[in-house]
Amino acid sequence: MVPAAESEIRIRGLQRELGERGIDGAFFVYPLDVYYFCGSRQNAGLWVPADGPPTLLVRKSLTRARQESLVEDVRPFPPSGEFAAFFDKKVGRIGLTFDVLPVQQYQYYQKLFSVMEFVDISDIYRRMRSVKSPWELAQMKESGRRLCDVFEQVPSFLTRGIRECELAAGIEFRLRAGCTQGPLRMRALNQEITGLAVAGESAAAPGCFDGPVTGKGLSNSAPYGPSGNVIAEGAPVLVDYPGVFNGYIVDMTRVFAFGGLDTDMKEAFEVSLEIQSRLTNILRPGLICEDLYEGAVKIAESAGLGEKFMGHTGEQSKFVGHGVGLELDELPVLARRFRHTIEAGHTIAIEPKFVFPGRGVIGIENTFAVTATGCEKLTDFPDDIVYL
Amino acid sequence: MVPAAESEIRIRGLQRELGERGIDGAFFVYPLDVYYFCGSRQNAGLWVPADGPPTLLVRKSLTRARQESLVEDVRPFPPSGEFAAFFDKKVGRIGLTFDVLPVQQYQYYQKLFSVMEFVDISDIYRRMRSVKSPWELAQMKESGRRLCDVFEQVPSFLTRGIRECELAAGIEFRLRAGCTQGPLRMRALNQEITGLAVAGESAAAPGCFDGPVTGKGLSNSAPYGPSGNVIAEGAPVLVDYPGVFNGYIVDMTRVFAFGGLDTDMKEAFEVSLEIQSRLTNILRPGLICEDLYEGAVKIAESAGLGEKFMGHTGEQSKFVGHGVGLELDELPVLARRFRHTIEAGHTIAIEPKFVFPGRGVIGIENTFAVTATGCEKLTDFPDDIVYL
Repeated sequence: MVPAAESEIRIRGLQRELGERGIDGAFFVYPLDVYYFCGSRQNAGLWVPADGPPTLLVRKSLTRARQESLVEDVRPFPPSGEFAAFFDKKVGRIGLTFDVLPVQQYQYYQKLFSVMEFVDISDIYRRMRSVKSPWELAQMKESGRRLCDVFEQVPSFLTRGIRECELAAGIEFRLRAGCTQGPLRMRALNQEITGLAVAGESAAAPGCFDGPVTGKGLSNSAPYGPSGNVIAEGAPVLVDYPGVFNGYIVDMTRVFAFGGLDTDMKEAFEVSLEIQSRLTNILRPGLICEDLYEGAVKIAESAGLGEKFMGHTGEQSKFVGHGVGLELDELPVLARRFRHTIEAGHTIAIEPKFVFPGRGVIGIENTFAVTATGCEKLTDFPDDIVYL
Repeated sequence: MVPAAESEIRIRGLQRELGERGIDGAFFVYPLDVYYFCGSRQNAGLWVPADGPPTLLVRKSLTRARQESLVEDVRPFPPSGEFAAFFDKKVGRIGLTFDVLPVQQYQYYQKLFSVMEFVDISDIYRRMRSVKSPWELAQMKESGRRLCDVFEQVPSFLTRGIRECELAAGIEFRLRAGCTQGPLRMRALNQEITGLAVAGESAAAPGCFDGPVTGKGLSNSAPYGPSGNVIAEGAPVLVDYPGVFNGYIVDMTRVFAFGGLDTDMKEAFEVSLEIQSRLTNILRPGLICEDLYEGAVKIAESAGLGEKFMGHTGEQSKFVGHGVGLELDELPVLARRFRHTIEAGHTIAIEPKFVFPGRGVIGIENTFAVTATGCEKLTDFPDDIVYL
């Protein structure tokens, strides 16, 4: 549960941003956005004026919102006809998160609010959320601990003859039974994913996901994640799973294999560790995201692995790390053309990976928190390939 | 995988609707919408002119879209500067699904298309999708069969002392290992849910979900689904789970209990069966959704259970059944003020339930397909309470 002080700091931070931009207030209707500021994810709208106390307007459940909300003023959502009267007549510019607000809702609120202008505050909001507080970092550490516990158990149920979906089932069973698994939220329109327990050729399949690995999936209706294929001897098994504790996500990948792996794959694994070391040795506030990505590309290229880096040849992702927190696709992104500056409190999953078409995927992923002077690993587990 | 004939029929059906309304074409960017028409869920935009062949414009993965797409013309997504040139100059009105399209995307496409007008085709599209073809019904029957297999196994792992999240883990493990579980897609902005394995007081907790039962969940960040509570003797255990096969969802609920249940709860269960019988005995094309709902309310009220029907007293849902298919919240809805006419091919989860605050939830849910003369049960499993 979110401490009251967190909610106050977040709201004050938002109000400062709104004030600086001459925006009269923000209205949030996306559930996670409402939750971030008031600690309650009910079906509700949250009004945060640039100056003064916020109000939570609840559709369902009012009872539960009153139990949970850290914003004091909780009311039933007004009927359409009474909505405008709720707002001060001086309100002229209202901020909304255009990145997730559907057009139908937008048009509905245009009618309800008799205002001059709606402005997009998605970027302001996403940048705020990218910087984690000590309390948030504690949630992510716990998420990491619980996830590592399950990774430690993988060799006990990753047995010869098992199918990818059975491996996934074993991992998800332990996360769920341990009360760890929550929804794996993503913000971008086109993105859906599950944990990846994928091996060999099906791990290397090209895919819709904006990352190095998509997986083959079970059908074209959800063409990602584990397939029904039996995991073969000598194929790299990529276990790329999120842990979700109290809403907070950490992301982690390890490679397993029955028997051994081909030499070129083992060499690629060493290169992924080298990229990880290089990035985490220099990671600190003030660096530019793109520079970190380009540094990683250079190492991959000088090892002759440029065409395999971060995706299926020709469809490679142009990043090497992504922000994580309440969503899997947070800021910042260590990506081409991303000139954002690294700040203390950023939490980044760094995942240098190499795709061998038809053969499998090799690489590493850990989640790191940027500190004042460097970074800290939140997924504290040995990086090595586990041979079975 | 979607048969080619399905895709052709869907596209022709859409073109007819567009033509009748003077809309020059539809542009889909929501992944499931793209999938519905072309059989491929890649990161792509699908252009369907009112007249002539459609084109799939792919961001990622072009390789996989070319393997999967039933629409022949598959191309890379044009760069912004070349986008307008792709379209015929006579295109003046373009249909989009405003119910799911984020405002940022809308504004992006407003710039890309040099058109006069965008119109909302969400309702046209959702009505099309509500009527299932024989092939779709076959997928849903298979989904039902696989889900019933897992319900049959519940007594083997629903053991005394188990926690709600462990029961959920057991169900999801079997669905996942059997390659059955896919994403539980919902269309509405505020809706997220998981399967419900909830008992006693935590099943009866008020909640954000637009249904009779939300569950307590593990934290305020995801306040739905199973909690970490141990399931008590004599508390009704509500197992409300979706099955997802090849993208198609069926929905089903059964009640289990250790020992026995209080008499008033057993009586309420009989009333839920009576409502189910009454509705399914008369269900056929031509009926009005609202009338079915009001009929259910009357039975609940004459049994003295009106205040417990379909939700926490004072926060009750005003429906008794919902369409299911590729999403959990499809049309039609057997709900107050919903004057839609029932058609052959509609697939509806009917779920009369009673909430006893502080004590638990009792009820039944099955998914039915409307036929020319009546309806067919897709979740073919005994309705009885299972005592353990």
